[in-house]
Amino acid sequence: MKLLYGTAYYEEYMPVEHLEKDMQMMEKAGLNMIRIAESTWSTEEPEGGRFDFSHVTRVLDAAARHGIGVVIGTPTYAIPAWMAAKYPDVLAVTSKGRGLYGARQIMDITDPDYLFHAERVIRKLMEAVSGYRNVIGFQIDNETKYYDTAGPRVQEKFVAYLKEKFHGSCEEMNKAYGLAYWSNSIAEWKDFPDVRGTVNASLAAEFDRFRRGLVEHFLSWQADIVNEYRRPDQFLTQNFDYEWRGYSFGLQPAVDHRKAARCLTLAGCDIYHPSEEQLTGAEISFCGDAARSLKDGKNYLVLETEAQGNFGWTPYPGQLRLQAYSHLASGACGVEYWHWHSIHNSAETYWKGILSHDLEENRIYREIGGIAKEWAKIGDSLTGLRKQNSIAILVSNDALTGLRYFPSSMESRAAGTCEYNDILRKLYDTLYRLNEECDLLWPDAEDFSAYKLVIVPALYACSDALLLKLQEYVKQGGSLLVTYRSAFADENLKVHSDRQPHILHTFMGLSYQEFVPATGESAAEGFTELLIPEGGKVLLGYDNPAWKGYAAAVENVYGEGRTFYLGCMLREEPLTSFLSEVLQRAGIGLPPDRFPVIVKCGRTSDGRRICFYFNYSGQTQHAKCRMASYDLLTGEEYAKDSELRLEPWGVAVTADGLRS
Amino acid sequence: MKLLYGTAYYEEYMPVEHLEKDMQMMEKAGLNMIRIAESTWSTEEPEGGRFDFSHVTRVLDAAARHGIGVVIGTPTYAIPAWMAAKYPDVLAVTSKGRGLYGARQIMDITDPDYLFHAERVIRKLMEAVSGYRNVIGFQIDNETKYYDTAGPRVQEKFVAYLKEKFHGSCEEMNKAYGLAYWSNSIAEWKDFPDVRGTVNASLAAEFDRFRRGLVEHFLSWQADIVNEYRRPDQFLTQNFDYEWRGYSFGLQPAVDHRKAARCLTLAGCDIYHPSEEQLTGAEISFCGDAARSLKDGKNYLVLETEAQGNFGWTPYPGQLRLQAYSHLASGACGVEYWHWHSIHNSAETYWKGILSHDLEENRIYREIGGIAKEWAKIGDSLTGLRKQNSIAILVSNDALTGLRYFPSSMESRAAGTCEYNDILRKLYDTLYRLNEECDLLWPDAEDFSAYKLVIVPALYACSDALLLKLQEYVKQGGSLLVTYRSAFADENLKVHSDRQPHILHTFMGLSYQEFVPATGESAAEGFTELLIPEGGKVLLGYDNPAWKGYAAAVENVYGEGRTFYLGCMLREEPLTSFLSEVLQRAGIGLPPDRFPVIVKCGRTSDGRRICFYFNYSGQTQHAKCRMASYDLLTGEEYAKDSELRLEPWGVAVTADGLRS
Amino acid sequence: MKLLYGTAYYEEYMPVEHLEKDMQMMEKAGLNMIRIAESTWSTEEPEGGRFDFSHVTRVLDAAARHGIGVVIGTPTYAIPAWMAAKYPDVLAVTSKGRGLYGARQIMDITDPDYLFHAERVIRKLMEAVSGYRNVIGFQIDNETKYYDTAGPRVQEKFVAYLKEKFHGSCEEMNKAYGLAYWSNSIAEWKDFPDVRGTVNASLAAEFDRFRRGLVEHFLSWQADIVNEYRRPDQFLTQNFDYEWRGYSFGLQPAVDHRKAARCLTLAGCDIYHPSEEQLTGAEISFCGDAARSLKDGKNYLVLETEAQGNFGWTPYPGQLRLQAYSHLASGACGVEYWHWHSIHNSAETYWKGILSHDLEENRIYREIGGIAKEWAKIGDSLTGLRKQNSIAILVSNDALTGLRYFPSSMESRAAGTCEYNDILRKLYDTLYRLNEECDLLWPDAEDFSAYKLVIVPALYACSDALLLKLQEYVKQGGSLLVTYRSAFADENLKVHSDRQPHILHTFMGLSYQEFVPATGESAAEGFTELLIPEGGKVLLGYDNPAWKGYAAAVENVYGEGRTFYLGCMLREEPLTSFLSEVLQRAGIGLPPDRFPVIVKCGRTSDGRRICFYFNYSGQTQHAKCRMASYDLLTGEEYAKDSELRLEPWGVAVTADGLRS
Repeated sequence: MKLLYGTAYYEEYMPVEHLEKDMQMMEKAGLNMIRIAESTWSTEEPEGGRFDFSHVTRVLDAAARHGIGVVIGTPTYAIPAWMAAKYPDVLAVTSKGRGLYGARQIMDITDPDYLFHAERVIRKLMEAVSGYRNVIGFQIDNETKYYDTAGPRVQEKFVAYLKEKFHGSCEEMNKAYGLAYWSNSIAEWKDFPDVRGTVNASLAAEFDRFRRGLVEHFLSWQADIVNEYRRPDQFLTQNFDYEWRGYSFGLQPAVDHRKAARCLTLAGCDIYHPSEEQLTGAEISFCGDAARSLKDGKNYLVLETEAQGNFGWTPYPGQLRLQAYSHLASGACGVEYWHWHSIHNSAETYWKGILSHDLEENRIYREIGGIAKEWAKIGDSLTGLRKQNSIAILVSNDALTGLRYFPSSMESRAAGTCEYNDILRKLYDTLYRLNEECDLLWPDAEDFSAYKLVIVPALYACSDALLLKLQEYVKQGGSLLVTYRSAFADENLKVHSDRQPHILHTFMGLSYQEFVPATGESAAEGFTELLIPEGGKVLLGYDNPAWKGYAAAVENVYGEGRTFYLGCMLREEPLTSFLSEVLQRAGIGLPPDRFPVIVKCGRTSDGRRICFYFNYSGQTQHAKCRMASYDLLTGEEYAKDSELRLEPWGVAVTADGLRS
Repeated sequence: MKLLYGTAYYEEYMPVEHLEKDMQMMEKAGLNMIRIAESTWSTEEPEGGRFDFSHVTRVLDAAARHGIGVVIGTPTYAIPAWMAAKYPDVLAVTSKGRGLYGARQIMDITDPDYLFHAERVIRKLMEAVSGYRNVIGFQIDNETKYYDTAGPRVQEKFVAYLKEKFHGSCEEMNKAYGLAYWSNSIAEWKDFPDVRGTVNASLAAEFDRFRRGLVEHFLSWQADIVNEYRRPDQFLTQNFDYEWRGYSFGLQPAVDHRKAARCLTLAGCDIYHPSEEQLTGAEISFCGDAARSLKDGKNYLVLETEAQGNFGWTPYPGQLRLQAYSHLASGACGVEYWHWHSIHNSAETYWKGILSHDLEENRIYREIGGIAKEWAKIGDSLTGLRKQNSIAILVSNDALTGLRYFPSSMESRAAGTCEYNDILRKLYDTLYRLNEECDLLWPDAEDFSAYKLVIVPALYACSDALLLKLQEYVKQGGSLLVTYRSAFADENLKVHSDRQPHILHTFMGLSYQEFVPATGESAAEGFTELLIPEGGKVLLGYDNPAWKGYAAAVENVYGEGRTFYLGCMLREEPLTSFLSEVLQRAGIGLPPDRFPVIVKCGRTSDGRRICFYFNYSGQTQHAKCRMASYDLLTGEEYAKDSELRLEPWGVAVTADGLRS
Repeated sequence: MKLLYGTAYYEEYMPVEHLEKDMQMMEKAGLNMIRIAESTWSTEEPEGGRFDFSHVTRVLDAAARHGIGVVIGTPTYAIPAWMAAKYPDVLAVTSKGRGLYGARQIMDITDPDYLFHAERVIRKLMEAVSGYRNVIGFQIDNETKYYDTAGPRVQEKFVAYLKEKFHGSCEEMNKAYGLAYWSNSIAEWKDFPDVRGTVNASLAAEFDRFRRGLVEHFLSWQADIVNEYRRPDQFLTQNFDYEWRGYSFGLQPAVDHRKAARCLTLAGCDIYHPSEEQLTGAEISFCGDAARSLKDGKNYLVLETEAQGNFGWTPYPGQLRLQAYSHLASGACGVEYWHWHSIHNSAETYWKGILSHDLEENRIYREIGGIAKEWAKIGDSLTGLRKQNSIAILVSNDALTGLRYFPSSMESRAAGTCEYNDILRKLYDTLYRLNEECDLLWPDAEDFSAYKLVIVPALYACSDALLLKLQEYVKQGGSLLVTYRSAFADENLKVHSDRQPHILHTFMGLSYQEFVPATGESAAEGFTELLIPEGGKVLLGYDNPAWKGYAAAVENVYGEGRTFYLGCMLREEPLTSFLSEVLQRAGIGLPPDRFPVIVKCGRTSDGRRICFYFNYSGQTQHAKCRMASYDLLTGEEYAKDSELRLEPWGVAVTADGLRS
């Protein structure tokens, strides 16, 4: 298995005939794959029922001539104008009303006419590409979400879903969601109001969960169709995207990636991150860990990342190489740029590809060629990388959704961003800067015993079962770190009516009744819980004299294990100290290097331990070599703890032991 | 008559059976009242025509067992889902179009179907509670406003209202509102356009006034219904709320409280204010003075104020007590918290009550119990408090509305807030910090002679009659302070076409033709009028050399009285000096203490003079005792002018004379 | 020919009978013209088909009695309520849906019912005023734009326009606009989607261009009607307005003024600018140069400028005079204030006129009278002023539109302003402060050879023909300065697929493939192109070490001429230096004075050279006299290079040679 290295390719968008030239240039650079067809429905089916896959097949033919593998994307995430003209209901009705045709991702993914045409074009496409050996896999749809679909039919489905959930009993639902508040309770299902107007967060969160389910259903439906045609050697993937803050930031609120990935053979995602002075590698690391966790640690494919990228992201010399290796170091089996040629019209003209609009070789192209050359040399040593981490972070879409409706930070309320991801990323990024690698887990995790430390950020809404599973993990000897805003509400976003934190207070040595804003120059920021120690040991307190009787962080011993509860978010420095302390008490050592030196390791399928050393700065840095090892590219050998010099934005890749 | 001390109570929202426990806890704490039922229509009438008041009556029964009085609220401010489903027109059409069901206060309060059902549920509720002796009063609706209702039927009513106002003559209306501008004049009533699109501020302001009238009509209609059932010992109130800026700030733009209060036997309001470091007591004082003025100085009931309140308002130890006494000191006959138990679902989960979600005793509960214990001891000495103030501030909804359409400050334009309240509060708050108490008056005031000084902030739009009344007051010996932006327009928001300030220039010793922005580091801010002294004495001028011939403030002697005109808003320090000067010239002394020490006094029904001393800071303060008096709680005696020590956030209550 | 000096006049809006008094006051002040009737349709036609021009004719009669000329405006830019009531489709459907009646400029200027009534009222008005000798000209409509009209009929017209443009071929259109992107291509015209939803910038820009064409068509249609009645001595004008940023700022995005002015005999515009401390004269100069260029250097009329103006613009003593002369110095043949009397109702109550609401004489009135007195004395010497400038700036609505869809600055994206105008004005204002006068040219310019230097800011989208014309100009000896973001796309906003800058790279000595944000404290700001010198001489480079191989500005020699390419926007100081350098190399001297001293010169019809010296500051300044000349007002004589003293906000006007 080779590392995949390639680019999204849109021959359909090219203003001049350039296909053969493009393939020559790719081959010359050493790229070995492209992804095509994923947003070109109107080219493939110019009129309803008239199909033309000539753009697809001529690219396949040309790619084959130049030894390039092809991922075929189904074109369904951007509908053609004729469909909107003939079937206006295909356009989703959202909280803003019925949309207008134009952008991608504007359809109702449950609309029967949409689904009819989607199925037909997928089958026709599958037939058209079935004979091509160089098709290495399929991507179903792209960055699928539910696009805030909320029209009458979707709402009917939702009411049916609620009826089933509550065994037909309105009264049960009224209770579960507290609908009596402001006179919202209903006695008959026929009176169920347009959910877009609701002020009830439980109901609104349930609607979001229901709609995440629509995405899972849609993808699995597409997967079933494609699987009828797929060869065993071809993979099936989806391009998952993350919460977007101008770049990939955190958990996707509109999809439960873990559940949606069940129908895939290969996890896939896009990872966009700032470049130039803002480049830290944190997004590459976080999104990579998240993608790897979708299929229990298996490798994933980076289906899109930037070459020149959005305006402002033109990488400094060396940064493209640093980024590419960083993806591999997190467990990617390949890296694909978005995209080959900068587009000459429409909306993403300044989201540049490898080539500028002039379609000529340029600095970016040459740097990518350099990377490909290295991978041709050492790539086989880097495939199938597996991680064995001591730390896991437990993440949850339900908790994320809960905090969207009840953010504790005015900033995230105003920005409309997910506060959950702020909390998650602050913890994650601190670990990242400490060079502590970790896995992500979802609430469906059956067992935590493989980890020395499980970190649970802001698990705002969850089942009792999950909390009891965490309790059992500690009892058996695990270490558990839980942050503020955890276990506050049940799965229906109903706040618990017993002592907080629900269930956790029975074994973490604390409880609380009040929470207040952090004040002044304290180490805490935002929402702070006034913890009352109950058997636990106070690790941190609050500055404000009014709250001096309360704790900010509490440690406890329970069963064979150990717990840490953090009642607030700490600023960068105190958070680093606190986490370092927790790591040490959990029996996890602190690596010698810190950001901007980043070190990531793993084991390849043949059992060799590979370490990547990264310099995320424009100045020369020195890393400490983790083991006796040698540089895969230069052959230079290093003793354990010896200094490894890293050029500005530089990379070193070592294998343990002596040069083979 | 006892001081009322209690809480809003929603048994309907409780996730577990807790009624008897709640009543026990209230009795133990010493609370003596609750308000119930005011937003639970869907519980009381789960389906149209099917009534169930069991939640109401079981609470009444339980309250009776524990000696707790109950205020019954009519449930009409939050409609049930079945009503919206069956009568879609009940949902108000506003400037944003037809709303969706969900929130409270979304109905058209003139809709016949709404009114039919509202009357029916009120009558059924009145019947259900008629036998209960512990019902002490009724609240009609809640925080009633017109909710921007602007649908076709409301507009038809408005046109009929205009026809009547202008005796059927379009031409008269065109003239009054200046509709010729931009071709807006009409020749036939049938051509009257949708008023939501108007650019004519006179017309828009008239529509707002018309809709304030709808609120008056609606409340008085409810009052008539309830009065058919009300016993003489039961009061009738409404919960008026103020302009909302995240807390109660100023005059309510959507209701003329003075007019709307006519149908009530007891004025009521809610007063929310920042807590912790932001607590100053200014909102308590302002809103209290405003509520007291609704019924000519009679006591009022604080129907809602925060216990833990909205996130960020968890009071420091001592602040709850400080707040509670502050309400009494302004003339409240009772204080009711919103609300008893924190709500476990929906929209106000983080607007916490006395109890946290765990429904257990907590610090807040215990502090409230402490207050109740004190009131049990000294409360009888504090009932029926009456004020006799030398200062009155004249306020006006028409002026407020006028300045909404013609704000002079870009900040209030951008924020959509009422600039009028900014001006009003800057004056009020300066008086507050100087410990000058005052009354509020409305344009319907018949006579100002009871006051030494009448302050008129920004009376932008008013009748000639009111200005002549002010002139007469001065002539007879009163002192009058008028600020910039007064008397600029008539009742129809038509700017006067004679010299400014209209009528006032005939006796205040000045006129002006130009107004300009304040510049640089001057003592003025915002809008500044270039006053031309005409007989008056210049008190203040402008820094800007270009305007050095003009005055900023002018004093004049007229008849037996004295006038002061302030042509701009001054910054805090110069405003304090200016007002101090005015007060002294008006023959009003300056009290010895200043904020953070606040002193408020009044006379109880038995003629005793009570003084409250407050420390609005976290540091110990000392106040000067106003008279020979003794502390009602500790019995300690003070000579006049002796020092009275106030703990951080502390309170002292004294009665004049020797201990009885 | 006299200088015109007057005011917009709205007798219809006057709350009291004041006509004769107004005319007396105007005559006394020395005003010689008014503009009337341009927004008073509902007064002229109170009901459909009933006409009443009595307000127009009584003003004409009164004006005639006092020797005042009158410009008659057609009333069509503000429709009456009866029209909206009877023909709801007259109200434009925009991207926000159907509007409500109320404001001006809310109609669809292509609606047949609107056009029918517009034509009828214009003809009736023309008949009503036909006998009046004191009608000196006509203004058709006012500040006409297309008001975002985008309803179904307009879109049908647009599709027909596209069909014609692309010879009926969808495929040709798909290619030209790159509609394959995101599946937007269409195969049949019937499937053409609602263009309001498009994400395709080429299509959106074409729709804007099409709608600018609607304005041209509408104005020329009105001109044809009026011309049927117009006497040869009467002029025909329109009141063009500029991009509005709270004042007149730059090129109007919604109208191509150059094309729209073809049907006029006299260019007209309104110029609003900040006053008081913000007064620089830059808007007066820029907008004046733009208006003068509409009819190839002929004089233009300032139809509106502020007297007291919008709140905050009350001029300091002297500023009104400074402004009035500044208009003349740019080539205006007259100045008209908006407006005579401050309006007592509706929306522009605080946009004050010459008179305040009290309708009395005031400081402003007296200052204007002073100006009129001077013009009565020296005005004849100032008429027919012509310019002969060495510098021209080439401006383009297509380029402006292109940059609206692809702004390089986040600030303009957020503000929704035209970045093109930012770039244009930064260059223009630097020239202004250097006292370099210039003309504006449009892409229809046939020949640039009259100029020593042509400056081309951000010509983002243009035809090859225009670029070749510029090349030819240089070849023949001209100097050319082109800035970044030029020649990037063709007329259809398709980015060129050859080397950038397209065509220019063949003779300007450079090319580029990458552009990046400016970083840190560099002399550049915003978008910076990484220029690769190809034969040209590097004038400026970048600070950032990563880009040190690239140039920021390149000079080249080509044919007989010289080129300068600036790859970024420079901050104020370096831009001044750079432009000074360019000017000198282009053989243009640098005048001795700099802002706040502004000097503007021209030649009158009798061949005399007139120079205006302005002091745009509150401090006394000294200018250097350009030639031996004498002051037209005082008669004082100056030797060349002698010092000319300018009072704060002062003006001097000189004629060359000795006093006649």
